[in-house]
Amino acid sequence: MKRAVDLALENVKSGAGGPFGAVVVRQGELIATGVNQVTVRNDPSAHAEVVAIRAACQVLSSYQLNGCEIYSSCEPCPMCLGAIYWARPAAYYFSCNRYSAAKAGFDDAFIYDEIPLAPEKRTIAGLPLLPEIGHLPFDEWLRALNKTSY
Amino acid sequence: MKRAVDLALENVKSGAGGPFGAVVVRQGELIATGVNQVTVRNDPSAHAEVVAIRAACQVLSSYQLNGCEIYSSCEPCPMCLGAIYWARPAAYYFSCNRYSAAKAGFDDAFIYDEIPLAPEKRTIAGLPLLPEIGHLPFDEWLRALNKTSY
Repeated sequence: MKRAVDLALENVKSGAGGPFGAVVVRQGELIATGVNQVTVRNDPSAHAEVVAIRAACQVLSSYQLNGCEIYSSCEPCPMCLGAIYWARPAAYYFSCNRYSAAKAGFDDAFIYDEIPLAPEKRTIAGLPLLPEIGHLPFDEWLRALNKTSY
Repeated sequence: MKRAVDLALENVKSGAGGPFGAVVVRQGELIATGVNQVTVRNDPSAHAEVVAIRAACQVLSSYQLNGCEIYSSCEPCPMCLGAIYWARPAAYYFSCNRYSAAKAGFDDAFIYDEIPLAPEKRTIAGLPLLPEIGHLPFDEWLRALNKTSY
């Protein structure tokens, strides 16, 4: 965890991005690290955890982080939490939380509050459109023989 | 939306990935598209919406999608919804929803149910660790003069 916080601190000092760092570890071995690179890479998904997860998956040549642990300087935002769920590590740890992030001007807590709302009632509204065609890709997926599930 | 669903369908037929497609549009102009590339790229974050958002941000040389709309073949999962919030488009649209995805074997609805839980009570537990050091990067951020907020 000290390493994740140090990465976050260094990321601010160097002017490279937001105050967030993350580390992926497996059985005590460091697999990959990540820092926030949203503005420097023009990638709103480049949060520390997502960067670290992507890097660790490349190291392990896998789209899953089975048996790994993720250490984040701050509680993962919903995007990063979703990425953690899709990567399926054993557990994750964080130092400060969404409320500390909010005090520093970040939307983490706000987005946590938006997720449980009905899509059409969210601040950024999500609206159904052509609901009659969306099942076609799933039908094809369920029929497909050459698929890799995840 | 038809384009997003066609992309999803084609992605399954070609064996390239999961049954999901997304399109980013600005003022009626197609900016970028994305398909699910999780297994082919070993990247659990490579969902259609995230791929499309990243691509659109590269096209626009921005980490924000102001004035854009996102069309997804399926309701965005919490990771993708988080990415949408961080990219800040005007709105997003989807054809089928999280329950259709669940029927096809995907965790979207499961993850939506996990997000509102306290971190330590989730299936993949999130635990605080060294909470006394996590504020240091935020302190530095609030002091920094050369930062780009997002």
